[in-house]
Amino acid sequence: MSETAYPPVSKHLDDVEAAQTEGRRKMDWALQHMPILQALRSEFEAEQPLAGERVGMAMHVEAKTANLVELLALGGAEVAITGCNPLSTHDDVSAALDAHENITSYAVRGVDDEGYYDAIDSVIDHNPTITVDDGCDMIFRIHEEYPELIETIIGGCEETTTGVHRIRAMERDGALKYPVFAVNDTPMKTLFDNVHGTGESSLATIAMTTNLSYAGKNVVVAGFGYCGKGVAKKAAGQNANVIVTEVDPRKALEAHMEGYNVLPMSEAAGKADLIITTTGNRDVVVEEHFTEMKDGVLLANAGHFDIELDLEALSELAVDAYEARDGVDAYELEDGRRLNVLAKGRLVNLASPIALGHPVEVMDQSFGVQAVCVRELVENTAAYDAGVHDVPDDLDKEIASIKLDAEGVSHDSLSDEQIDYLGSWDHGT
Amino acid sequence: MSETAYPPVSKHLDDVEAAQTEGRRKMDWALQHMPILQALRSEFEAEQPLAGERVGMAMHVEAKTANLVELLALGGAEVAITGCNPLSTHDDVSAALDAHENITSYAVRGVDDEGYYDAIDSVIDHNPTITVDDGCDMIFRIHEEYPELIETIIGGCEETTTGVHRIRAMERDGALKYPVFAVNDTPMKTLFDNVHGTGESSLATIAMTTNLSYAGKNVVVAGFGYCGKGVAKKAAGQNANVIVTEVDPRKALEAHMEGYNVLPMSEAAGKADLIITTTGNRDVVVEEHFTEMKDGVLLANAGHFDIELDLEALSELAVDAYEARDGVDAYELEDGRRLNVLAKGRLVNLASPIALGHPVEVMDQSFGVQAVCVRELVENTAAYDAGVHDVPDDLDKEIASIKLDAEGVSHDSLSDEQIDYLGSWDHGT
Amino acid sequence: MSETAYPPVSKHLDDVEAAQTEGRRKMDWALQHMPILQALRSEFEAEQPLAGERVGMAMHVEAKTANLVELLALGGAEVAITGCNPLSTHDDVSAALDAHENITSYAVRGVDDEGYYDAIDSVIDHNPTITVDDGCDMIFRIHEEYPELIETIIGGCEETTTGVHRIRAMERDGALKYPVFAVNDTPMKTLFDNVHGTGESSLATIAMTTNLSYAGKNVVVAGFGYCGKGVAKKAAGQNANVIVTEVDPRKALEAHMEGYNVLPMSEAAGKADLIITTTGNRDVVVEEHFTEMKDGVLLANAGHFDIELDLEALSELAVDAYEARDGVDAYELEDGRRLNVLAKGRLVNLASPIALGHPVEVMDQSFGVQAVCVRELVENTAAYDAGVHDVPDDLDKEIASIKLDAEGVSHDSLSDEQIDYLGSWDHGT
Amino acid sequence: MSETAYPPVSKHLDDVEAAQTEGRRKMDWALQHMPILQALRSEFEAEQPLAGERVGMAMHVEAKTANLVELLALGGAEVAITGCNPLSTHDDVSAALDAHENITSYAVRGVDDEGYYDAIDSVIDHNPTITVDDGCDMIFRIHEEYPELIETIIGGCEETTTGVHRIRAMERDGALKYPVFAVNDTPMKTLFDNVHGTGESSLATIAMTTNLSYAGKNVVVAGFGYCGKGVAKKAAGQNANVIVTEVDPRKALEAHMEGYNVLPMSEAAGKADLIITTTGNRDVVVEEHFTEMKDGVLLANAGHFDIELDLEALSELAVDAYEARDGVDAYELEDGRRLNVLAKGRLVNLASPIALGHPVEVMDQSFGVQAVCVRELVENTAAYDAGVHDVPDDLDKEIASIKLDAEGVSHDSLSDEQIDYLGSWDHGT
Repeated sequence: MSETAYPPVSKHLDDVEAAQTEGRRKMDWALQHMPILQALRSEFEAEQPLAGERVGMAMHVEAKTANLVELLALGGAEVAITGCNPLSTHDDVSAALDAHENITSYAVRGVDDEGYYDAIDSVIDHNPTITVDDGCDMIFRIHEEYPELIETIIGGCEETTTGVHRIRAMERDGALKYPVFAVNDTPMKTLFDNVHGTGESSLATIAMTTNLSYAGKNVVVAGFGYCGKGVAKKAAGQNANVIVTEVDPRKALEAHMEGYNVLPMSEAAGKADLIITTTGNRDVVVEEHFTEMKDGVLLANAGHFDIELDLEALSELAVDAYEARDGVDAYELEDGRRLNVLAKGRLVNLASPIALGHPVEVMDQSFGVQAVCVRELVENTAAYDAGVHDVPDDLDKEIASIKLDAEGVSHDSLSDEQIDYLGSWDHGT
Repeated sequence: MSETAYPPVSKHLDDVEAAQTEGRRKMDWALQHMPILQALRSEFEAEQPLAGERVGMAMHVEAKTANLVELLALGGAEVAITGCNPLSTHDDVSAALDAHENITSYAVRGVDDEGYYDAIDSVIDHNPTITVDDGCDMIFRIHEEYPELIETIIGGCEETTTGVHRIRAMERDGALKYPVFAVNDTPMKTLFDNVHGTGESSLATIAMTTNLSYAGKNVVVAGFGYCGKGVAKKAAGQNANVIVTEVDPRKALEAHMEGYNVLPMSEAAGKADLIITTTGNRDVVVEEHFTEMKDGVLLANAGHFDIELDLEALSELAVDAYEARDGVDAYELEDGRRLNVLAKGRLVNLASPIALGHPVEVMDQSFGVQAVCVRELVENTAAYDAGVHDVPDDLDKEIASIKLDAEGVSHDSLSDEQIDYLGSWDHGT
Repeated sequence: MSETAYPPVSKHLDDVEAAQTEGRRKMDWALQHMPILQALRSEFEAEQPLAGERVGMAMHVEAKTANLVELLALGGAEVAITGCNPLSTHDDVSAALDAHENITSYAVRGVDDEGYYDAIDSVIDHNPTITVDDGCDMIFRIHEEYPELIETIIGGCEETTTGVHRIRAMERDGALKYPVFAVNDTPMKTLFDNVHGTGESSLATIAMTTNLSYAGKNVVVAGFGYCGKGVAKKAAGQNANVIVTEVDPRKALEAHMEGYNVLPMSEAAGKADLIITTTGNRDVVVEEHFTEMKDGVLLANAGHFDIELDLEALSELAVDAYEARDGVDAYELEDGRRLNVLAKGRLVNLASPIALGHPVEVMDQSFGVQAVCVRELVENTAAYDAGVHDVPDDLDKEIASIKLDAEGVSHDSLSDEQIDYLGSWDHGT
Repeated sequence: MSETAYPPVSKHLDDVEAAQTEGRRKMDWALQHMPILQALRSEFEAEQPLAGERVGMAMHVEAKTANLVELLALGGAEVAITGCNPLSTHDDVSAALDAHENITSYAVRGVDDEGYYDAIDSVIDHNPTITVDDGCDMIFRIHEEYPELIETIIGGCEETTTGVHRIRAMERDGALKYPVFAVNDTPMKTLFDNVHGTGESSLATIAMTTNLSYAGKNVVVAGFGYCGKGVAKKAAGQNANVIVTEVDPRKALEAHMEGYNVLPMSEAAGKADLIITTTGNRDVVVEEHFTEMKDGVLLANAGHFDIELDLEALSELAVDAYEARDGVDAYELEDGRRLNVLAKGRLVNLASPIALGHPVEVMDQSFGVQAVCVRELVENTAAYDAGVHDVPDDLDKEIASIKLDAEGVSHDSLSDEQIDYLGSWDHGT
C-alpha cells in the first residue's frame, strides 16, 4: 500500500466497537428482508465463486449495500470499499464492514474532496480485479490515474443512471478499456426499483414529513416514465386525485388511458395540493407555475437532480422564506401564500431528514443482479470484451427466480411441446 | 382561583419565549392544512358566537388541537385547557396557546398523576360553561368533585370512543347531568377518520419505521370495520396482497366480495409479511399464531389498546428479545425466526418513535364538528337535555359543506320539484 | 278453485314440453351459480320446514327467481306463482315451474291488465298462508279484495324498494294486517346488490350495447349512494376518469375523499363521454345539460324510474331522432351533435335489448334471505305482529355464513374471553 | 378487369339498398367514436395525400375497418377490398363501402375457399400501388401469383401478429420484395389494444354471456403479457381475486409485485371460478387441470388460437356435453361437475355469439396508424427498401397527438433549454 494511503474507517472513529455493533444491527435488519442476498449467501459460501478475486467498490456505504459487500466477501473475494458520496456513508456500517476479515472499508462520512479521492486511491491500491461502482468514480479514476492496472481487471459493474451515462460516453470515445455491466438498465431494476421503490418511499417520506394524507388531494405527477407511473399509481391507491403532466404525447396518452387527468403544468399547478417531479429534466416547475399555486402547496422532487424545481426563481419571487417544519422550507409570496418545498428540491426519498432511501426489497433485487454479474465476470471472463454490456437475460431472470423461490411463489414452466410450438411460430409456417 | 391551583405551563418552562415561537410554528403548519378551521375562524372572529362563555378543555395538547383551542378563543370564549394524557403534550404548543390573552394552558408533558389532576382542577377553577373532552376526564371530575358547577354548565363535547363509552355508561346510570355531544360517533368522523386517517398514517409510519415496502407483500388485516377497510384498501393500493381476518360473517363476506383473501388468523399468520390488527378486541394474535409465522414478519396494531397482540405470550415463547431498530422489537424464537413488533403493540400511528398521529386533514374535520357543536350549545341551549346527544345532522353536513367550499369543490342541490318528488315517494303513493 | 280461474301457463303454450326443457336449462344454469340456494335445497329437502304451508307469489318469473320458487316447494310448501310485471315473464321458465308437482305457475308473458289481475286472483285462490311479493301487488290485492283470507296468512316477504315503500305506507295508515319482512332493506341485499350487482351489470350492458370501452373515458356518475358507489368504483376499475355529481354535501365529500372529481352536473355534462344516473330522483339530466354535451355522448340510467333523464326535453331539443344501434336512440341537435340514449332511459341493466338483469350471484343472496324469512314465519309465527319487520340480523348473517361456506371461505369466531371483553367494554368500566 | 373476375358484393345481395343503409348506420356509429379517423378525414379530404394511388386491401369488413377504407378513399385513393376471413364480413357494411364511388368491395360473408381467393384476385386486378393486410394473404398472393405487379407497388401495411410473423419469415428467406410496415408491433397498438381493448371486451363479453359477476370470484389469468395484464387489472378493478399463472420468472415476479397471487396452473385450476388464457401458446389448460376444477367453472380464451384449452382432452374426460347457454358448452364429468367452455375455446371477445370484437376506440388508434403509414409510403417512397419496417416513431406519436387533441387533452412540450439539457446528458458530461 502506498505511503499516502488513506486509513480505513476504524482509524477515524472514537468507539469502534460500539460503531461495529450498531452497524451490524443495521445490516441484520436489512438482511432479514433481503431474501435474494440470503439465498446467494448460501450459494456463495458453499461454492466460493469469487475465490482469489479482489473487488474494489465505490458505493453508498449503508446497511443495504453492506450486505452486498459482505456477500462478495463470503463468496471468496477480498473486498475494499469506499463511499461514492461523502454524505451517504454511515460510519457505523462502515466500521462493521471493516471488521470483516476479508473487507477493508475506507468510507467515512463527511470527508472533504481530498479525503474522498484519497479513499478511492486506497481502494485502488488493493489492485482490484473487479470494480463495482455507483456513479463510475472508481472506473473513471482507474482509467485516468492507474491505467497500468487495467490489464489485470476482468470487468466491472455500474449501479446508476449517471454512471451508465458516463461509461457509455467513455465507450463512445473509445476510452473504456474493460467490460462493464450496466446493471442500472436491466429489467430487474427498471421494472421494480422505480415503480415500487421510488413510488412508495417518496410518498411515505412526504406523508411522514408533513403529517398530511393523500385522500382527496390533487397530486400532480410531472413525468409518466417508470418513476412517474409508480408515484401516480401509489398516490391514486391512497385515494389521491392524480394529475399527470408529460411532454411526450404517447406517454400523455398512456396516462389519459389509465384514467388520470392529463394537463399542462401551467394548468395543473393551480390545482395542485402536491407536485412531485419525476422527469430527470430541468425547470419542470418554474416561475409562471409558482405564481398560480394555492396556499400550502407541497413541492417535491423524486426525479434526479435538484433542478426540476426552479428554486432560484422561487427565492426571488418570495418575500420571506423559513423552515416551516423539519425538511420543509416555506416560501411566502407577497400575497401571503406559502409554497412548501421538501428536502430543498433534492430527491425527497433520499435527502429528507427522515429519509431512509430506497426500500430494502428493491435494493435486494438490484444487488442480487450485481452479485451474479460479478460471478459472471469470473466464470465467463472471456465472453466479454471491453465496453458496456447489458446484463445477460438469464442472469436477470435468475434473480427473479431466486426471489420467487425465497417467497415461496412457484410458477409454471414450458413443456417441450410448448417450446416447440413457440419455436415454430417464431420461425413462420 | 383556589390556593392550590396548579400554575399554567409558562411557569414550568425555562425559555418560554423560544417555546412559544416553536409552538406557534407547529400550529401554523397545521392550520395551513385545516381549511375547515380556517373558514370557521373567519366566521367566529366576525360573529363572536361564544362571547361570554368559558370553555374548559382536557385534550391532547399538540399543534392540531391547538388550532381548535384558538378558534374557540377567537370566537369570543375564554378557554382553559390541560392535557388528557401526560405523554401527549407538546410543551411548546402549550406555551404558544398560553400566550393568547383568552387562553390559559396548564398542560405540561410528563406530569405525574397528582399534577395531572391538579391541572384538571385548575381548568375547572375557571368555572367553565362548556366542557370539551377527549376521554371524558373533565366531565367525570366535574360530576364527582364539583357538582355545584353543573348548574352553570350548558353542555359538553366528547371526542373519542372511550369517552363516549364512559358518558353513555354515566347516562345509563342516571349520572350524567348535562348534555354532551358524542362527536366521536358522527359520520364526519367515522367515514373519514378511520378509513383515510388511520389507514394512511399507519402504513406510512410502518414504512418509515422499517424501510420496507408493500408491493408484493402479504399484508394481513385483522378486522374489517372502518379501520380495517381503510388499511386494506390503502395497502392494496400500494400493491400488497391483502388477507383479511374477521369474526363477523357479513363483514367477512364484504371483504371476500371486495376481492380480498379471507382466512382465519390460524391460516393467515403463516403467510403474513405484515399483520395489522384493527379489531378493538383482545388476543387477536396469540401464541398459536406466533409459532406459525415467517422469519422477519412485522406485527403492528392500529386498533385500540395494546392487547390485540398477546405480547406476554410472545415474550415467553422467545429465547431472545432486542431492539432491532428504532420502534421495532425483535423476538427471536428457538429456531432463529425473528418476529418484529412495532411500537410495542400500541397504536402504531401514535406510539411509534416517528409517529405524528392522525393526519392534519382528518383532525380538521373532527375539530370542525367540535367547534360547531360548541356554538350549537350556546345558540340552542334549551334544545338539549342532560344526556348524550348525537351531533345534529345539519351541523355534521355543515362541516362537509365548509370543506368542499374551501377546496373549491361545488356540487348540485335539489330543486323544489326534486324535493317534492322525494317527499311523495317517501310517503307512499 | 273458482269458476273464473285463470288457467296455468301450460294452457297458454303450444309446445309445453319444449318450453319446459328450455326453462329447465335456464334454471340449471342459474342454480349452478347460486351456492346459497343450493345449500338451502339440501337443508329444506331434508327438514321440510314448510310442510303444510301454501305460498302465494307474485315475482318476476325468470330463471333466478324460479330457483327460489322450487326451493320453497322442495321445502314442503305448495306454491302458486304469477308474474309481477307482464313483460318480465319467461314462458319457458314458467312452464318448467308449472311442471313441478307442488308448483302452479300462472305467469304468461305479455298478458293484458285483466289477465294480470286474473292471474293474481288465481294464485290467491290457493289460499296462501304466506305471500312473497316483488312490488306488493299480492299483498295489496289480498287486503283490498280478499280480506277474509288474512286470518290464515302468517306473513309475507317483500323484495323491492317500491314494494317496501307501499307496505310502509299501509302500515302508517294502519292498513297492514299481517307481518311482512322488508327483505329489500336488509344488509345482505343493500351491501352487495347495488354496489356489485348494479355496478357490474350496468357497465357490462353498456359496453356490449355500444362496442365501446371505458379506458380514458370521462364517466359521470350522478348520485353517490350504494349504486353510484358501485358504478363509480367499477368504472374507475376499468380506467375511466370518474366524475361524481351529488346533492348531499357529505356524500359529495365522500366521493371527493375517494379521489373522484366532484362537479355539479352543469359542469360535468360538458365533459362527459358517458353519464349514468343512479339517484332515484327525477330530472337529474335536463335541457341545460343536454345543450352542453359533446357529440357522441352516451346517456344511461341505473337508478330507478325512467325520469332521471328528461327525455321529453331532449325530444323537443332534437331536430332528428333515430335508432343508432340496437338499444341506442340518437337525438341529433341542430348543430349536428348526437346524444345517445340507452334503453330509452329505463334501467339500462334490465331494459336494454341484451340486458340479463342482475347477476345470478346477487340474486342468490337476496333469494337466500327470502327463503329463510319464509322459514322464520313458519317456525316463529308468534314472534311477529302485523306490520313491517326488518329481517332479523341472525337470519341475514346466516345467509352470509352459508355463502362463505359454499365458497370454501372460513373465518374466525370470537372466543369466550373476547366476547366478555367486548361486553365489558360496551357496558363501560 | 379479367374475365374470371369475382363480382363486387352488390351482385351477391338481394336488397342492396337496404344493406347499404344498414351498413352506413353501423359505420356512422363507429365513426362517431373514432376521433382519430375523424381528424384524419378532415386532413385527407383537404390535402388528398393519396391522389392517384390504388390501395388493395384484405381485412375484416365490418364497421370499424370500413371507416379506414373510406378514409383512404377520401384521401384520394381508389380502393378495392375483400375480407380476410370468410366469417367476419358484414355484408351490409360491405355494400355500404361498395356504394362509394372510389371503393369496390368484394367481401361477402361465408364464401367458400375458392370464392375467398377469387375475391382476393379481383382486388389484385385493380393493380394496387399499396396493399393493406390483416393476416398477409394479399401480400402473399401477390408475391406468389402476381410477381409482375410488385414493381409498381410502393409498399404495404400489415395489421396483425400472425401477418407480421409471416412477412418476417418471408424477409428472412429473402422473399419479401417490397416494404411493409409492421403496424401490429407499434407502441400505439401494443400499449392500448391488448391492455385496454382485449381486457375490457373479454370481460364484458363473458359477463353478458353468463349473467355472472366478478366480485369475489377467483379469476385465473394464464399469462402476464400485455393481454394478461389488461385482463388481470380490469378483473381486479371489478373486485375479482386475481390469480396469475406464468412461465417466465420475471413476468411472474411482476405479477407478484403488483399484488396478485401467482400460482402454477396445477394449483390455480382447483381454485378458479373463471380461467382466462392469454398466452398465445398451446395446452395451457389440460387434463390434469380439468380434473381439479370446481363445479360450474368458466373457461375462456383471450389469447390467440383455440388450442390454449385442450378441448379434445376435455371431451374425452366428459360423460356428457351440451349447450348450457348461448355461447357456453357444458362438459359434465363423471362425478357431476360441470366445466363450462365459452365460445368453444376461440377468442371469447371475437367468437362468442354476442361478441362485438375490439372496442371502437382501440381500432381507431390502430387504423389511424394504418392511415398515416399509407400516407408515408406515398410521401417518402424512396425512404423504404423492401423488407419489414417498424412504424416510424414520429408517425406513431402523431396518432397519439391527434387523439389527445380530439379529446381536448393538452400537454406540455420541451423548451429549448430542456432539449439541450437532455442532449448534454445523453452525450455524457
